[in-house]
Amino acid sequence: MSLPHVLLGVLEARPMSGYELTQLFGASTRWVWSAPQSQIYPALKKMEDNGLITGEEQTRGTRMTRTVYAITDEGLRELKEWIGTPLPIPPSRDALEVQALYFDLVPAESAKRVLKEFISEQETALEHAEAHEARLLAKDTELLRERMTKRPVEQHDRMARLKAHVFAGHAAVARTRIAWAQEGLRLLDE
Amino acid sequence: MSLPHVLLGVLEARPMSGYELTQLFGASTRWVWSAPQSQIYPALKKMEDNGLITGEEQTRGTRMTRTVYAITDEGLRELKEWIGTPLPIPPSRDALEVQALYFDLVPAESAKRVLKEFISEQETALEHAEAHEARLLAKDTELLRERMTKRPVEQHDRMARLKAHVFAGHAAVARTRIAWAQEGLRLLDE
Repeated sequence: MSLPHVLLGVLEARPMSGYELTQLFGASTRWVWSAPQSQIYPALKKMEDNGLITGEEQTRGTRMTRTVYAITDEGLRELKEWIGTPLPIPPSRDALEVQALYFDLVPAESAKRVLKEFISEQETALEHAEAHEARLLAKDTELLRERMTKRPVEQHDRMARLKAHVFAGHAAVARTRIAWAQEGLRLLDE
Repeated sequence: MSLPHVLLGVLEARPMSGYELTQLFGASTRWVWSAPQSQIYPALKKMEDNGLITGEEQTRGTRMTRTVYAITDEGLRELKEWIGTPLPIPPSRDALEVQALYFDLVPAESAKRVLKEFISEQETALEHAEAHEARLLAKDTELLRERMTKRPVEQHDRMARLKAHVFAGHAAVARTRIAWAQEGLRLLDE
């Protein structure tokens, strides 16, 4: 489970409340790592117990309070250690591939509907990845701007290019999968 | 969870014991769907209870027995129904991508070690996918031969091409990822 490391990576930009984190995981972060709210709060609690983050109660208005979490030196050390450690490839579990293995068992039209739906989802993912790559290259995301304030200006271009490259990879995989599915549509008609 | 459908797909070739199934999931099937032995036996039990498969006790030698599972008509119907149903894209959880998002936080050498390890794993996956694609195109796998015995000869080429196409897709994605990681190595040196 890498959720703690994903959370540490986000908090490296700036301290955030649990609510802000769940909002991020519902929006931009979900393209890289999807986590439901039900996992995020327990993970934060455990990370706090382990000294990777500290929670600070903040008062909002007269009665509302919220906890804002900040990464600790220990948390930053743990994050850096994890980033530089080769991880085992996760096990393969791709339901579409299993479906595609048995497309010969169903009418071509059913199989084509599955592939067309997949192409449409991959096109959405591609569009998001290309847009996010462009925003990162333009240093135009809130989190990147916050991270850059803590780093020498001569590192900013490299930071932006390395982060953009992750989304360039997303886009390239999506394009490869779309081409694969299109070839599948052609094969089904044979 | 698609494990029952993966098992139904395998059993469509021929009846197998739980032991044979776990051997398959430890070898060829793991490239498409990885499942530990601890999941396979309970899944078979539940599928039997649901009438998707039937188990038959076979005696081996004087005292050994084993249960051999066969797909039922109901199981085949369920498998075909599932194959033709578009599924939601699974949530993104790619730890390497999270690591790569923060490569700017660690020495270039650590990040490069992670990418080089990834390239080596992807090269293994590519090699397997290309070899399996070639074997399927040559109709040279045991399971495909067994499936073909139940189908008219004029369908055999299409069956082989559709199944080979799944591994062609694996290979294409592995090549895309290798190119991505190589570009990452170049960016880290900037």
